[in-house]
Amino acid sequence: MKSLPGPVERLIDHFAKLPGIGPKSAARIVFQLVHAPAEYVSDFADSLVSIKRDIAFCRECHNITDQGTDTCAVCSNPSRDHSEILVVEDILDLFAFERTGSYKGIYHVLGGLISPVEGIGPEQLNIGTLVARVKRLVSDSTVELVIATNPNLEGEATGMYLKEELEGIAGVSITRLARGLPSGADLDYADSTTLERALSGRSGF
Amino acid sequence: MKSLPGPVERLIDHFAKLPGIGPKSAARIVFQLVHAPAEYVSDFADSLVSIKRDIAFCRECHNITDQGTDTCAVCSNPSRDHSEILVVEDILDLFAFERTGSYKGIYHVLGGLISPVEGIGPEQLNIGTLVARVKRLVSDSTVELVIATNPNLEGEATGMYLKEELEGIAGVSITRLARGLPSGADLDYADSTTLERALSGRSGF
Repeated sequence: MKSLPGPVERLIDHFAKLPGIGPKSAARIVFQLVHAPAEYVSDFADSLVSIKRDIAFCRECHNITDQGTDTCAVCSNPSRDHSEILVVEDILDLFAFERTGSYKGIYHVLGGLISPVEGIGPEQLNIGTLVARVKRLVSDSTVELVIATNPNLEGEATGMYLKEELEGIAGVSITRLARGLPSGADLDYADSTTLERALSGRSGF
Repeated sequence: MKSLPGPVERLIDHFAKLPGIGPKSAARIVFQLVHAPAEYVSDFADSLVSIKRDIAFCRECHNITDQGTDTCAVCSNPSRDHSEILVVEDILDLFAFERTGSYKGIYHVLGGLISPVEGIGPEQLNIGTLVARVKRLVSDSTVELVIATNPNLEGEATGMYLKEELEGIAGVSITRLARGLPSGADLDYADSTTLERALSGRSGF
C-alpha cells in the first residue's frame, strides 16, 4: 500500500500470513488495532510471546501443555482410559474430539501425515514414540489404537503405515473411525464413495 | 475449550475478538503459531507493540503517520493539491483512495460518522479541526471539499451536517462522490435506487 507508515505495513504483512486472513482483512484488523487502547495491544503482544514461553509439548502424546509440566492434562489424568489411544494428525484434531466430551481414552499426535509430495516421511512424524509407548502399555493390558487421520489420500496412507508398524505387537488391536453419512447430510448431495461406505458399513436399527 | 493451557486460550480469545475472525479460525491460527519459530512470533509481538509506540496521528488530517512527525506523508507532500480536501470516515477509506493512485488532493479523516443510535454526535468527530483547516486554507485560494462518506443513512446525514457547517465559508465549494452503477455491475441485479441515481446523473457519451 502506498504511503503507509512502516510499522503499519509490517503488522499488516504479519496478519496477512496467518491462515484464513487476506491482505484486506489484515488491513482492517490493523487499522482497528491502531485505535485500540495501548494496554489492550500490549496484552495481545504479551499473549503472543507467552505462546512460545509458557507452552511445552507433552512427552507422552505431543499435545500442548503448560511449560514445566512433562505430560498434558489428558495424559496425566488417571481417570482417562490409558488402554485406548486415538491417533490424530495434529492438536486441532485432538481438541475437536475433546469438544465432544465423550471420548475417555488418551491421544497420540502425529504432527503431520506421510506425504511423499511434500517430502514428509514416517521418520519426521511422532511414530517412533507411538511404537515405544504402545510397547510399554501392552505390558499392563491390551491396547486399542484408533486411527483417526483424515479420510483422504495422505490420511489413508499414514493409517496403513501405522497398521503395518503396530499390528505385529501382541495385545494391540487397531481400529479406525467409522465412514458413512455425516449428521444432517442430504443423500442427494452425498458423493458416491460416501454412499458406498455408508451402505457397506450399515448396522442394525 | 476443555483442558487447553491458559496461554493458548488467552491468545485464541485475543484473535477471536478481531474483525472477521471467529473462534474456529482463531484456534487454527494459534495452533499454527504454537509450532512457528520463536523469533517469528516475537517479531510479530514486537510489530504489535510498535503499532502503538511508533505511530502518531497527523495534526492536519488525522491520518496515521510515523511517531515524531507532525503531518502525514500526504499532507507534507508539496506536490499534492492542497485546495482539494476529500473528507472520509476512516483511514481505511483514505487508503482505498490512495490505492487508486489517481487522487492528487489531500484528505480529512472524520474518525466516524454522526450516529444518534450509537450516541455519536458531531462533537466526537474531527469536524472542528476541519472547519479551522478550511478557514485557514481559503485565505490562500478557493477550496473544494469532496464529501466521500459511505452512501448510507449515517454517511448521508454526516455529509448534510458538513455541508451546513461549511457552505457559509467564502471560497469553499462542496461536492460529493458520484452515484451510479459500479464498474462491472449487472443492470438486472442493481437495486432501484442505484438505477434512479444512474439515470438522473447521466452524462454525455
